Amino acid sequence: MSSFDLRLSTLRAAYRAGTLTPRQLIGELRAKAAALNPAFHLFIHLLSEAEVAPYLDRLETQDIEALPLYGIPFAIKDNIDLAGIPTTAACPAFAYTPGESATLVAQLIALGAVPLGKTNLDQFATGLNGTRSPYGKCRNSVHPDYPSGGSSAGSSLAVALGVASFALGTDTAGSGRVPAGLNNLVGLKATKGVLSTAGVVPACRTLDCVTYFTATAREASDLLALTAQADPRDAYSRKNPQWNDARAFGKLATFRFGVPSQPEFAGCAESPALFAKARALLEAAGGEAVEIDFAPFVEAANLLYQGPWVAERYSVAGELMEANKEAVLPVIRDVLAKAPSATAVELFRAQYRLQALKAVCDAALESLDFVLTPTYPRPVTLAELERDPIGPNSLLGYYTNFMNLLDYAAVATPTAFMKNGLPWGVTVFGRAFTDQYLLSVADLLQRSSGVECVGGGKPDASERPTTAANDRVRVAVCGAHMQGLPLNRDLVCRGARLVEATQTAPRYRLSALAATPDGTRRPGMRRVPDGGAAIAIEVWEMPSLELGSFLTTIPSPLALGKVELANGTWVTGFVCEGYGLEAGTDITEFGGWRAWLSSGRK
Amino acid sequence: MSSFDLRLSTLRAAYRAGTLTPRQLIGELRAKAAALNPAFHLFIHLLSEAEVAPYLDRLETQDIEALPLYGIPFAIKDNIDLAGIPTTAACPAFAYTPGESATLVAQLIALGAVPLGKTNLDQFATGLNGTRSPYGKCRNSVHPDYPSGGSSAGSSLAVALGVASFALGTDTAGSGRVPAGLNNLVGLKATKGVLSTAGVVPACRTLDCVTYFTATAREASDLLALTAQADPRDAYSRKNPQWNDARAFGKLATFRFGVPSQPEFAGCAESPALFAKARALLEAAGGEAVEIDFAPFVEAANLLYQGPWVAERYSVAGELMEANKEAVLPVIRDVLAKAPSATAVELFRAQYRLQALKAVCDAALESLDFVLTPTYPRPVTLAELERDPIGPNSLLGYYTNFMNLLDYAAVATPTAFMKNGLPWGVTVFGRAFTDQYLLSVADLLQRSSGVECVGGGKPDASERPTTAANDRVRVAVCGAHMQGLPLNRDLVCRGARLVEATQTAPRYRLSALAATPDGTRRPGMRRVPDGGAAIAIEVWEMPSLELGSFLTTIPSPLALGKVELANGTWVTGFVCEGYGLEAGTDITEFGGWRAWLSSGRK
Repeated sequence: MSSFDLRLSTLRAAYRAGTLTPRQLIGELRAKAAALNPAFHLFIHLLSEAEVAPYLDRLETQDIEALPLYGIPFAIKDNIDLAGIPTTAACPAFAYTPGESATLVAQLIALGAVPLGKTNLDQFATGLNGTRSPYGKCRNSVHPDYPSGGSSAGSSLAVALGVASFALGTDTAGSGRVPAGLNNLVGLKATKGVLSTAGVVPACRTLDCVTYFTATAREASDLLALTAQADPRDAYSRKNPQWNDARAFGKLATFRFGVPSQPEFAGCAESPALFAKARALLEAAGGEAVEIDFAPFVEAANLLYQGPWVAERYSVAGELMEANKEAVLPVIRDVLAKAPSATAVELFRAQYRLQALKAVCDAALESLDFVLTPTYPRPVTLAELERDPIGPNSLLGYYTNFMNLLDYAAVATPTAFMKNGLPWGVTVFGRAFTDQYLLSVADLLQRSSGVECVGGGKPDASERPTTAANDRVRVAVCGAHMQGLPLNRDLVCRGARLVEATQTAPRYRLSALAATPDGTRRPGMRRVPDGGAAIAIEVWEMPSLELGSFLTTIPSPLALGKVELANGTWVTGFVCEGYGLEAGTDITEFGGWRAWLSSGRK
Repeated sequence: MSSFDLRLSTLRAAYRAGTLTPRQLIGELRAKAAALNPAFHLFIHLLSEAEVAPYLDRLETQDIEALPLYGIPFAIKDNIDLAGIPTTAACPAFAYTPGESATLVAQLIALGAVPLGKTNLDQFATGLNGTRSPYGKCRNSVHPDYPSGGSSAGSSLAVALGVASFALGTDTAGSGRVPAGLNNLVGLKATKGVLSTAGVVPACRTLDCVTYFTATAREASDLLALTAQADPRDAYSRKNPQWNDARAFGKLATFRFGVPSQPEFAGCAESPALFAKARALLEAAGGEAVEIDFAPFVEAANLLYQGPWVAERYSVAGELMEANKEAVLPVIRDVLAKAPSATAVELFRAQYRLQALKAVCDAALESLDFVLTPTYPRPVTLAELERDPIGPNSLLGYYTNFMNLLDYAAVATPTAFMKNGLPWGVTVFGRAFTDQYLLSVADLLQRSSGVECVGGGKPDASERPTTAANDRVRVAVCGAHMQGLPLNRDLVCRGARLVEATQTAPRYRLSALAATPDGTRRPGMRRVPDGGAAIAIEVWEMPSLELGSFLTTIPSPLALGKVELANGTWVTGFVCEGYGLEAGTDITEFGGWRAWLSSGRK
């Protein structure tokens, strides 16, 4: 495999410099794809020169600066619509030609990206290995004895083999994360509903997600920021809160992450040490590992195929299967066999069980920023899948099947290679709407692990690292909100926890404001050019969604601005308008509100 | 029916004054209940003197000031557990005696409330009229030709007839709101999951809510604030965001509310005028009415009984029904008849349809603070129900059946009496987690309509009106966030809308702060004791959950505090720390940032 670099920033720089044109690049990539296809079966439909021409022609009249994805080649899993090209879901009898592209495909094209073709998949996106297709089995991009992983098999190969900068997959049960792990890619399984699924053949309509395959976490972050958008065409679309946006203020400071107390490696000789290394990378970056019971996650995962959720898949493929049994692969028929007999009563009972498990899993995640797991217990070989098409496939889903049922976001990221050269990686997952934060963690892991990206090279250290906020905000408090004082309840009732008791930078003065009509005195802290001191404060962390109502409780002249801490970082915190300070008493000499209170001077 | 006043504040005042004791009151109420039961069948089990004694004994050793519900009598629908007393769900063959009280019952008792007994209901909470019980039909509290409404029949009667200060009902499809409407009560159907349902016999486990019946909206607000609490015993429990708390800052200023463009009154001669009157009360209070298409709400409502959701009900009663057909009332058997044959595929398809409808309904609610409807199209008579136990019952659910399917909060509130003396009311509903705001609206309606409360009297005008915030916050901006200026996108991407362009109170000065390293200048507004002017600002409204991430985008010395508007009200808005103003230029004379920008002086 020759070296290549199709990263978004690399191509953009080349286009700007005039050393490359989209037409030239797409021509080369089409030829490369055609050459690879006989061995890898990655494309079901590679766009012809005529089919790709309109997308290229259009770019020639447009300004690169107006199009963030100008000339970026991408591949589309063949269960996602591209206008005018058949969608097969890897089932020829199911095929139809859509008049309209999937919303996300249309968004990407509007941003300047150029579609290359429709990629191979496990039929109806049912599978995690890439061999369940009448269009050929997809072998791994690196090792011929292993599968590509699936169901987004061809999409992972398109990026891993250097035919596309990024690719769209889908991920209901792991179809985006497993092939990412097996092919040294970042696989973003964003929060359900953040990326539109309008124009996607459903696998499980209530669970489906579209995914991005990229060489680096940074690219996935950029693509997500460009395309996360509520879609009126998609009833399951959800509004992405703005803390989950790449431009958000904040950075990966100290953090707490979960790891399974008894991780499953299915007897793999190498995975335990590779996982321990990934954990150590996070600890070295300031993370505190917390071991968690993984049993409820596994039980939730088992509901997906052992429970009535197969009826969702059946609701798509079932009619065809009944009309024409042979149209559907035997292994898919086996998976869906129980579906028609499942009753609504059984489904409700399974949903109750899932809700009970979700309550337990959510509680485990509540005090964590994310959870770290392997992406799969161990890789499985093509030979194993030949012998048993179900068991080894299920094993690959051990760490992925529960994700959408529990409504979490997840990113698979490479961290190592096995001795045989096969890529190996981890998945970080967390609460819904923490995608950008998870990508920051994936970015950190990808950089710090030192693995080469697909095509060679490493994530460019000169690029701004992605440092997104998650769904928590830290707030510095300096008065009655501190632990044990009367207004601390306003933090506690919002689920806030104390992160640290520290001091401000030595640039503040503290006043006891004039008493309010009910006799209450409160502190006002002001930043000063000279003569400042370090003031004792506490940093609390609360859900971002609660910060707004907290702010509304704060009376003038107090306000929430930014406070510089002793370590030089700035955090949201209490400040005071100047007008309120005039009638106050300067109490800076006490070093803090608590010390003044206990001094008896008040 | 004699006059009575069992309101929370009335009883508390009497207990504090020593003019009444809980033991004395409970004794009187038990006697009254026993006298009423033969005609009204409101209690299935009235606690004996011995059964109620432990709750009273306990109060004698406790301080009234430590117990917000000290000695407050309440009734419990008999599908909610009270430890040691049989729970029947109005089906003797189903009865069991729980060892533990429902979480909510335990919370209330811990707050000092005293349970009086278990109340009659439509069997398995399946019905909206109160006649489907082997323990007797519940007639209306006011008019003998009408039913109490149900399924929380006895609970509504307990409050309406003056036997309890408040009562617990349940509301899956309208069971709390319909009887509230028919008996001159406030019925709070809080957001799903905000009040625990642990220890409640499920009707539809995914939809069930516990409800409060009270004489006034103010009491329901207080009860909700005291008991909204995440419950580890209830997998469907949800954390109540703190904007949905009675103590929240904010008040009912200008607001926008929806009304059905073609309301259904089922031929009622009086309801159209009564509904128009309620609408006019809101308009007089500053509300802007917006007519909305009600068809998607009605279609969602129809899914509840015509679709596979009956399988949820069947999952509770089905086993018993199969083992002993005669144990279940014929009408309930009829309702559940289709359930066993519903398939999981059908249920998933119905859930997809519901999601599609929810997307449409949510979009309609997005720019509204709430929606106003009648509580039912028209009352139905006992004679009608005798002739047809299904049709008239369904009619009562026209405005209620969709609520939990769509995940909205709702409050039924009295606004009028019909010519025959029958109470009549409206329902206000809105987005999840706006319960306290909806109760503010209900309070406003109840006060302004002038209707007498149950037992006589009116909501006490001397009481602080409930003025809660909803899930939106108003923010005053004075610089680059204003419409058309560069940072306005930070408001728009958070779903903010411009409420008004106005001015501050004449107590501020405006500065152009020193340029940042990238050459940007921003305004700093400061409140001054003397020499202030009115500064041009814009007030925007955004989802409260987005305010936190908005705050994190704001750099020092700017901050969000409180700003006084020209009309004398205070609103969250931009302020500036004193240190940032020193190097700035005073531009107060321009009257605002926009004027300064266009002056060419920058």
